[in-house]
Amino acid sequence: MPDALPPDGLLADLSALLGPAGLLTDAADIAPALSDWRGLYQGRAMAVLRPASTDQVAACVKLCVAAGVPIVPQGGNTSMVGGATPSEDGRAVILSLARMNRIRALDPVDMTMTAEAGVVLKIAQDAAADCGCLFPLSLGAEGTATIGGVLSTNAGGNTTVRYGNARDLMLGLEVVLPDGQVWNGLRRLRKDNTGYALRHLFVGAEGTLGIVTAATLRMFARPRANEVLFCSVRDEDAALSVFRRFRETDETAIRAFEYMSGVGVDFAVKHIPGVTLPVAERADHYILVDLASTRADADLQGLAEQVLGAAMEEGEVIDAVVGGSEAKRTAIWRIREEHPEAQRKEGASVKNDVSVPVSKVPELIRRASAACVALIPGTRPVPFGHMGDGNIHMNLEQPVDMDPAAFLARSHDIMDTVNEVVRELDGSFSAEHGIGRLKTDMMESWRGGAELSTMQRIKSALDPAGLMNPGKVLP
Amino acid sequence: MPDALPPDGLLADLSALLGPAGLLTDAADIAPALSDWRGLYQGRAMAVLRPASTDQVAACVKLCVAAGVPIVPQGGNTSMVGGATPSEDGRAVILSLARMNRIRALDPVDMTMTAEAGVVLKIAQDAAADCGCLFPLSLGAEGTATIGGVLSTNAGGNTTVRYGNARDLMLGLEVVLPDGQVWNGLRRLRKDNTGYALRHLFVGAEGTLGIVTAATLRMFARPRANEVLFCSVRDEDAALSVFRRFRETDETAIRAFEYMSGVGVDFAVKHIPGVTLPVAERADHYILVDLASTRADADLQGLAEQVLGAAMEEGEVIDAVVGGSEAKRTAIWRIREEHPEAQRKEGASVKNDVSVPVSKVPELIRRASAACVALIPGTRPVPFGHMGDGNIHMNLEQPVDMDPAAFLARSHDIMDTVNEVVRELDGSFSAEHGIGRLKTDMMESWRGGAELSTMQRIKSALDPAGLMNPGKVLP
Repeated sequence: MPDALPPDGLLADLSALLGPAGLLTDAADIAPALSDWRGLYQGRAMAVLRPASTDQVAACVKLCVAAGVPIVPQGGNTSMVGGATPSEDGRAVILSLARMNRIRALDPVDMTMTAEAGVVLKIAQDAAADCGCLFPLSLGAEGTATIGGVLSTNAGGNTTVRYGNARDLMLGLEVVLPDGQVWNGLRRLRKDNTGYALRHLFVGAEGTLGIVTAATLRMFARPRANEVLFCSVRDEDAALSVFRRFRETDETAIRAFEYMSGVGVDFAVKHIPGVTLPVAERADHYILVDLASTRADADLQGLAEQVLGAAMEEGEVIDAVVGGSEAKRTAIWRIREEHPEAQRKEGASVKNDVSVPVSKVPELIRRASAACVALIPGTRPVPFGHMGDGNIHMNLEQPVDMDPAAFLARSHDIMDTVNEVVRELDGSFSAEHGIGRLKTDMMESWRGGAELSTMQRIKSALDPAGLMNPGKVLP
Repeated sequence: MPDALPPDGLLADLSALLGPAGLLTDAADIAPALSDWRGLYQGRAMAVLRPASTDQVAACVKLCVAAGVPIVPQGGNTSMVGGATPSEDGRAVILSLARMNRIRALDPVDMTMTAEAGVVLKIAQDAAADCGCLFPLSLGAEGTATIGGVLSTNAGGNTTVRYGNARDLMLGLEVVLPDGQVWNGLRRLRKDNTGYALRHLFVGAEGTLGIVTAATLRMFARPRANEVLFCSVRDEDAALSVFRRFRETDETAIRAFEYMSGVGVDFAVKHIPGVTLPVAERADHYILVDLASTRADADLQGLAEQVLGAAMEEGEVIDAVVGGSEAKRTAIWRIREEHPEAQRKEGASVKNDVSVPVSKVPELIRRASAACVALIPGTRPVPFGHMGDGNIHMNLEQPVDMDPAAFLARSHDIMDTVNEVVRELDGSFSAEHGIGRLKTDMMESWRGGAELSTMQRIKSALDPAGLMNPGKVLP
């Protein structure tokens, strides 16, 4: 099938608007934008638009809408669910925010940053640090993911337990609406009760209600004390108990609380050069605790000793290592961060980004692991992630002797098996990655009825022609 | 004008549905629900419905919608902006959530509470404390305001600087939609990216998009250390500087940071029995700093001494008192909490609930005060409130010799004068009280264009007949 023919004149109009740097139509130039980084989808598009200003985005939207051409907004293209990949029909254009990469304002008194959508997350973090502040959103793709993308997916990451999701770090938005109007909602206010909270509607909408072009973000005081602990623990319940102990003792000191399975840590040690087990003996369950405080004299080591001492007495913690130096803290974090890469090197794996109430994390890990092993004997569960906010990446590694393709062919069965447990535990089938294309067909079953019909009413009201990132989020 | 005649059969159907305890039609019984507690409005209504369950609320909505009768939801009826008062035409019914006052679930591991809309805020706070946790939302009306009301207005209060607004304390909602469908979104998840964030649309919508019947709320660890400071400071800039010092030194310890003017404290000392000035000499500017930590050994006195010592050296802080005992902490807070009552006793006053970026609070206080004095010579500015999140109650007390009624007749001029300054400082004309009836006519000027038209599209999509709390929020 040839690519859909561009509507008469649209490309010419876009070219006149955007200039040569702003419009890509050569197949080789647009190829990287057509597939997602997990390699789940391969779409087509007639062009990649690269507007350099909000006005240009608005003009692009107006031209495309007039021509009836769908628009797929794209930031760093790091979606885990194909949220920024066009469909196969080739009718759409991709609208890249990459050139909108200015930090418009930074204020260390207000502790706000106004950044355009194409600013890479890492750049935003660095800009905050440069003015003595902290922008705390932190996730694996932070060197590529953009502010527009992390807001449109309401990204989570490692520090949610302390600072919240992307949504919670956002005070205001600038959005190009589906009719090409620009809504300037870049308010930098901590309190503003003046009508419906539109900004919260666009965060997490994955570009289906409009295009986020800039955001005003919250910054925080820079921590002056930091400590990272790595512990082997008795079991999943013990891991949760240690979390509760830290929360009870010093709630705000917990910057991250991560669970890892013995198998997952084995993979990291086996496959990732330089990764070693920090504790003396292998265990079936580990935790990573990142403690931080703005108070230079916070005595986080003392806090750690107090909590871990009590937990060891109860047999919850088997062994523990306190980072102590920056290098050791980094080394501990690497064990956790290399989990996806280690799983990739070990073979085929199926990913599940799920959440449950915090109290049910141990049950989730146990039951979902057992159910998947029962489904495909030999499957190796590799649950890991953000125990402190109930978000476990309930990943499954193929059996040692199985053909990777045969294992991946069972992906949907595996996901269904995990999700059945998640549902029984009042959880969510997408904790932090969103819906994209991957999970639209699950919306009816999980969010059907009044909730989905309300979403659809909103979609129809704001985007009656259905041209904003079609095929994403809603079935 | 007689009350509008009830549509045939509606009251009979409602009576059959709700029983005698659930339907009030006698004028004496419904009178308290017809006016707001500030006394700004006096509405009429054909009945007060008092459903006892979500199903009953849904059935009420269906019956009223079928009859074309507007519904005004009402919680504790403590709106500052007439948000729960029916119009004068008498066509509406009031739907009170007062009987839906169960706490359905409390979980100290998940740190969540699921409470029905009619639960009084103070009761929710106490329930959290009873299971060893904290529900931090705290405001003057907490003994009367309800969970449904504080969410529907996205209430703020004293602890926003640390814990956020009501919105930030909510994980899930149960809502009866304008078509009578029940949306059960009572999820107790910290991460859940599955479509549009409907819950954030209903929070702050003041009942115009549906009726919140229950909510799942976040709880926090209970602080074990607490200290309250009262300081006289050089000027508004010094007050802000002290805030920045505390934030830089121990961001999470600041539970509240309140500004008070010398005139406001004078009124409290003059009119409120038992209130005395804690520092030796009167000043023109004061601050109250509430410090708290879950860590029992947090040494908040040491923190206070460190920060105040540095601020005194710079001449920012003139004098300071550290509470030390529970009784003294309460006495300090009373000075701040009695501000509205003291202003009432002093004479007529005009209230402005406004916010600006935190960095602009000093300028707001100075410029708005000067502008109001220029407008009506002798006017006594009494700015006070939540400096830490940029929300100042920019109140104006009548001149000593002026007739109160004559002063109040200038209310709109005064509000316009304050708001002109607020607008120039990129602020908001309603920080935490919402829009209600009082400020609907300001929406066009402040939120007009793409923002207001998007709100109106959403309203039309969800409530096409316009029967949910008509005349509120949207012009």
